[in-house]
Amino acid sequence: MNLIGKVAVLGTGLLGASLARALKKHGLVKEISAWSRSQQTRLKCVELKNVFDFVYDKPANAVKDADLIVLCAPTANIPPLAQEIAPFIKAGAIVTDVGSVKSAICQKCAQIFNGTKIDFIGSHPMAGSEKIGIDFSDETLFERRPCFIVPSSFSTQNNVELLEKMWSLIGMRTYKVSACQHDAIVAHVSHLPHLLAGTLCVNASKFKDDLKLFSGPGFRDTTRVASGSPAVWDSIIADNRDEILNALKSYEKDLHTLIAQIESSDSEAIAKHLRAAKKYRDELQNTL
Amino acid sequence: MNLIGKVAVLGTGLLGASLARALKKHGLVKEISAWSRSQQTRLKCVELKNVFDFVYDKPANAVKDADLIVLCAPTANIPPLAQEIAPFIKAGAIVTDVGSVKSAICQKCAQIFNGTKIDFIGSHPMAGSEKIGIDFSDETLFERRPCFIVPSSFSTQNNVELLEKMWSLIGMRTYKVSACQHDAIVAHVSHLPHLLAGTLCVNASKFKDDLKLFSGPGFRDTTRVASGSPAVWDSIIADNRDEILNALKSYEKDLHTLIAQIESSDSEAIAKHLRAAKKYRDELQNTL
Repeated sequence: MNLIGKVAVLGTGLLGASLARALKKHGLVKEISAWSRSQQTRLKCVELKNVFDFVYDKPANAVKDADLIVLCAPTANIPPLAQEIAPFIKAGAIVTDVGSVKSAICQKCAQIFNGTKIDFIGSHPMAGSEKIGIDFSDETLFERRPCFIVPSSFSTQNNVELLEKMWSLIGMRTYKVSACQHDAIVAHVSHLPHLLAGTLCVNASKFKDDLKLFSGPGFRDTTRVASGSPAVWDSIIADNRDEILNALKSYEKDLHTLIAQIESSDSEAIAKHLRAAKKYRDELQNTL
Repeated sequence: MNLIGKVAVLGTGLLGASLARALKKHGLVKEISAWSRSQQTRLKCVELKNVFDFVYDKPANAVKDADLIVLCAPTANIPPLAQEIAPFIKAGAIVTDVGSVKSAICQKCAQIFNGTKIDFIGSHPMAGSEKIGIDFSDETLFERRPCFIVPSSFSTQNNVELLEKMWSLIGMRTYKVSACQHDAIVAHVSHLPHLLAGTLCVNASKFKDDLKLFSGPGFRDTTRVASGSPAVWDSIIADNRDEILNALKSYEKDLHTLIAQIESSDSEAIAKHLRAAKKYRDELQNTL
């Protein structure tokens, strides 16, 4: 007996295609229907016969009879996509997404599905890579990673539990949070590192010598995430602007404090900063 | 015929012990003598019979008859160590180091060896890891990594070439630079990323939730170098203070520009920033 009957995956990039692979691998669903806006990607889905049972060129067709619909589009496209498919979803179905910001998406989707018999529950599986697209999809992508679940005020406990179960069974640790709480956490843990890494690249690109020749594993690791898709990040910044600004400004303050400490050769304060940083990073290494 | 007769490695932590392993692996030296200030480390050196021919508890004894002496101590300890061994080094010998800052070290060592027949040439093999100590030493540590060579105004071409050859033959790309040029480059490419990563950890440690539970590969990679030894970094900051401040301030300016762009929702400027960052990081990926 499968956990879910029919799942519709809308958007079959890295996350969508990896989710479909993982659901099939673990035998959690009977059928998966897919939609992608790119014909090239749809053809790749068709080739993955063991993963996708149906592939459509219209989202409305893909969601027909689905028990669970997962919106795997870039964050800015998720509410318009929800709007487009809403009339074609069967009563009692659950809609979720994989967007990395939640307040903007959950608010808009709550409005879209308000008064319907469709339960929108936000998800944010924190998995991924700077490698994007179906070609890099991987059934193990979600294993041992955290997943946020953001119920709406109308969500039923059964539906929330079903969704928690789905993410858990493909290997994720689930955390039920509010949309605001989520957005502040990811601003610090994901968006801030990305923007700092990108700024380090921008800064390095202006140096008089070609620093790429001299960059070691430290520079490479510290900047790795800056390779992420600018389109995706544009949209994340727009949707999580306030929390990102909070995180950036609190970081800017900490950086300025360090600069002042170095400027005044306050070796005690510098040592304290370095020890606190190492302590946190060492603890992180031992977390999970 | 070996490239060098006897090499003395003073300090057998990660770099010193890895260098000794690599020199022996490639058959570049006849004999290696070692000194470590820690008895525990000296005992480990004695166990590495194929790597270290002699192990001493006094640096003066280790440098006797050595053709090349490599100072592998923390940066602040390098000039005092040079001072201590200077009277015991044979005429015609080369002294080098592996310190990650060069102006301070090269200036002090030039004074120490001024008027002697000993040629001090600074080296900075850019290899390493946040894992420190002889236990992590690795004969392949230097392969495909850059190495700076900083001749003094008295260095002979023969000696500089010999040193370049040594680092090249264990797999490094060598770059001959001035001490100032070196310090500005490493401030940007190594010290800045370290301090930014550390500040990100300090910032995260003050957040109300335990962000370690939610940190993905992005946060982990971006902060990895913050695990480095606070003692080593204390000393690097003290010795490369001016160039580090230049790098930090130029970064702070770039970060402030980004914050202002996000604050004013200048999506064109944000997109330009993200694209420039990705371009640089993608080029880095394809460098070497």
